[in-house]
Amino acid sequence: MSDNVPKSGGPVAPELMADLAAASRILAAQGVVDGFGHVSMRHPKAPERYLMARSLAPALVTPADIIEYDLDSNACNANGRSSFLERFIHGEIYKARPDVMAVVHSHSPSVIPFGLVGVPMRAMFHNAAFLAFGVPTFDIREKFGATDLLVSNGPKGVALAQVMGKKDVALMRAHGSVACGPTLQTAVFRAVYTEVNARIQHWTIALAGSGTDATRIAAVDEDEAPLADVINRTAGMRAWDLWRTQVRAQVGW
Amino acid sequence: MSDNVPKSGGPVAPELMADLAAASRILAAQGVVDGFGHVSMRHPKAPERYLMARSLAPALVTPADIIEYDLDSNACNANGRSSFLERFIHGEIYKARPDVMAVVHSHSPSVIPFGLVGVPMRAMFHNAAFLAFGVPTFDIREKFGATDLLVSNGPKGVALAQVMGKKDVALMRAHGSVACGPTLQTAVFRAVYTEVNARIQHWTIALAGSGTDATRIAAVDEDEAPLADVINRTAGMRAWDLWRTQVRAQVGW
Amino acid sequence: MSDNVPKSGGPVAPELMADLAAASRILAAQGVVDGFGHVSMRHPKAPERYLMARSLAPALVTPADIIEYDLDSNACNANGRSSFLERFIHGEIYKARPDVMAVVHSHSPSVIPFGLVGVPMRAMFHNAAFLAFGVPTFDIREKFGATDLLVSNGPKGVALAQVMGKKDVALMRAHGSVACGPTLQTAVFRAVYTEVNARIQHWTIALAGSGTDATRIAAVDEDEAPLADVINRTAGMRAWDLWRTQVRAQVGW
Amino acid sequence: MSDNVPKSGGPVAPELMADLAAASRILAAQGVVDGFGHVSMRHPKAPERYLMARSLAPALVTPADIIEYDLDSNACNANGRSSFLERFIHGEIYKARPDVMAVVHSHSPSVIPFGLVGVPMRAMFHNAAFLAFGVPTFDIREKFGATDLLVSNGPKGVALAQVMGKKDVALMRAHGSVACGPTLQTAVFRAVYTEVNARIQHWTIALAGSGTDATRIAAVDEDEAPLADVINRTAGMRAWDLWRTQVRAQVGW
Repeated sequence: MSDNVPKSGGPVAPELMADLAAASRILAAQGVVDGFGHVSMRHPKAPERYLMARSLAPALVTPADIIEYDLDSNACNANGRSSFLERFIHGEIYKARPDVMAVVHSHSPSVIPFGLVGVPMRAMFHNAAFLAFGVPTFDIREKFGATDLLVSNGPKGVALAQVMGKKDVALMRAHGSVACGPTLQTAVFRAVYTEVNARIQHWTIALAGSGTDATRIAAVDEDEAPLADVINRTAGMRAWDLWRTQVRAQVGW
Repeated sequence: MSDNVPKSGGPVAPELMADLAAASRILAAQGVVDGFGHVSMRHPKAPERYLMARSLAPALVTPADIIEYDLDSNACNANGRSSFLERFIHGEIYKARPDVMAVVHSHSPSVIPFGLVGVPMRAMFHNAAFLAFGVPTFDIREKFGATDLLVSNGPKGVALAQVMGKKDVALMRAHGSVACGPTLQTAVFRAVYTEVNARIQHWTIALAGSGTDATRIAAVDEDEAPLADVINRTAGMRAWDLWRTQVRAQVGW
Repeated sequence: MSDNVPKSGGPVAPELMADLAAASRILAAQGVVDGFGHVSMRHPKAPERYLMARSLAPALVTPADIIEYDLDSNACNANGRSSFLERFIHGEIYKARPDVMAVVHSHSPSVIPFGLVGVPMRAMFHNAAFLAFGVPTFDIREKFGATDLLVSNGPKGVALAQVMGKKDVALMRAHGSVACGPTLQTAVFRAVYTEVNARIQHWTIALAGSGTDATRIAAVDEDEAPLADVINRTAGMRAWDLWRTQVRAQVGW
Repeated sequence: MSDNVPKSGGPVAPELMADLAAASRILAAQGVVDGFGHVSMRHPKAPERYLMARSLAPALVTPADIIEYDLDSNACNANGRSSFLERFIHGEIYKARPDVMAVVHSHSPSVIPFGLVGVPMRAMFHNAAFLAFGVPTFDIREKFGATDLLVSNGPKGVALAQVMGKKDVALMRAHGSVACGPTLQTAVFRAVYTEVNARIQHWTIALAGSGTDATRIAAVDEDEAPLADVINRTAGMRAWDLWRTQVRAQVGW
């Protein structure tokens, strides 16, 4: 099997590795992940490689836990460390979406209901403007029948990436969701505000007095969304700065 | 009375006693128990004995607080320590279910509503797949009339165990619930994700626009559930590892 | 005015004063009070006197902040310290209810809705059994017209105590609630579990699919309630032990 | 451009600068702001100037981060520090409302739904009495068409201030809200209790069994509101004292 070990894309700056490990802890601190979930980033110099922690609860990840993978999700440097079963989510999205530089997978609790019923997620406020472009739902049962619901191989990752298409966020029925972005910071931001938006949308729907008639909700509209999303990707990084500072106060990196 | 003190099943490895004490604190940290609730494990070498803390709030339990009981819930080594009034929940489930190695009893707040109305719990995501096998409700009033609602003797424990049958989780009307499993870790996992799932199901039902028509919710189905549950009992132990690490950071065991 | 200063009922054991100060902090830690709310206890040796902190946020109270009052809510030992505007809640309940030894007033957020609409609070589980005896609502507007909503003098306190009658908990429309008990520990327990029960009841009503038809909810019934409440006042003190231990870990008393 | 730098209104007492920085941290600790949102106060001696932190997450603000602005929101002493894009919210409200001495802008999650549907906010309890005077909604789309939703220039700030009129709180559709007051402490109090009230109102509406028929909710009425609000602005400062003490326990100012 060692013949199949893919070659590394080269060394990555320690501060980027630290940011990726910090992203795991940020997602845990923000309630997006619990013992499960993972975040990856594309190798900054080798677009055919990506970086992700070994199989470990997100709140415990350190830079030393990060493994490099090729886009078929074969580890370049496992060194006996075990990999996440669902790393194929990441590899197949990187293959299908050259614009995506980072991916988050989570079971964020407020988001899960939207993957179980026919009510679409919408952007309740400017920080979640990226949701206004549409949030498709991947139902693994359609193509693969009864499974353990995990995206645990390449074909399942391909199917998920196909449903995701050009969107930033996709729901996974009876499982969770995926958020991606052009930078690590933006992918984390989107994962966090997808959860925040879901909480707001639940109460908004309750307030509107209907679980299905979404027409009465004055959500961010299609024309506003691209304009608002630019701000999220620039000035919105103030949130990342806060979260990164909070992680730094707890660890030495 | 000392003539009735049952004989011990023999010494238990200190690390297992520490894990059991840690399980109490984990359940408190995860919001499954507050000042009340308890977790037990079957004696690893003597299946006719089980281990559980003395009557004490779960967040305060240490290994030294653990008492050994026979399956009639008589203490082997109380040494003046008082026992939980509801230890019969544990003893009678161990009697009825040789496959069960650990039991959690809690008043987990999001779960209680499902024991009060006719809406069944269902598995909203893969981590709660064990709920897809069905969650029966024990109403102590049916057999015992007006009581203090506690399962405070053998017959009440037997009746609860009968309602539970072969399931992993049972609701107790106007009281709480019980979760069990083939290992301590799995029982704790199930107690935690029963609560998490209840929160998700409340919002899912609200989103579906109906408190009773559950047919519109694309929950984990019967074919998926056993497959997903295997993962929970294996790779899912990553959650236990996180929780155990968090307890270890606060105590010396 | 100094002629009107009532005489003290005599010294109180320091550990009781510490328990009363701790009760304030417990209520804050449990989310029952925020910057506002107060807890009092009847003087242990002088039933015509009660003890309560000076006007101060509950989380900051120390034993040195406790003032003694007569049942008209005149301070015995203010020494320049300011009193809560609503101390008359306490004084008038102690007058009307010789069985009451402690009173909690709070604006506990999940409870407030029940004082605003015609849906009665019911006991969703055994720990809240005391609610099964009925929870009346005091509307200050009925007798006093437009006010600042505060129970800021004797007559308003009398009117509240009349509405409360023999119950353990009363709602105050557009304001908050009062819980009382035969011991400090039980009054605190009831204030905490009134809030917990309110959260559970909100979700139970949502689950039952109706905000008004409470008949479908299998709450603690009238026969069960007195039996369950005995346990709360005895074994239920395990919760107080936990909370008191947590306060002791933060302060020296 | 340096010719356009407005002149300072003069030095401000260090304890007032510290209070303003603390206000930012208080709003973060109370869940009113996350990585975003800001609080300002009018210059205590120069009514044509106001003070606000540089563009920074509220939880990180220190007194050294505070910049002085004229009412057109030009910085007097930026010294290379970047300003919040939405500072015009503050400047234009100070222009329109001489009575306002402090302004908070937030994306407080429970409040956002009220800006998206046609259900008015009402005062659920005395601490939120200021809401009883009415809470208008600013929809930036009406006057400015598709935008990034930010109040990022003078005209947008003017339009917001016009919708706000003489009220204490205004909603911003698909964005957030603004709260103001005659003192820094009162503005912070109002921002906090607008969020608390929103949570209570959501559950109250659910309990009333209707998202639109608000007539069944016995909210603070128009006659009670002014009386209750006086108390909030005086005795209600007990909450500020608590929050300020909590900040002081974490920083040296």
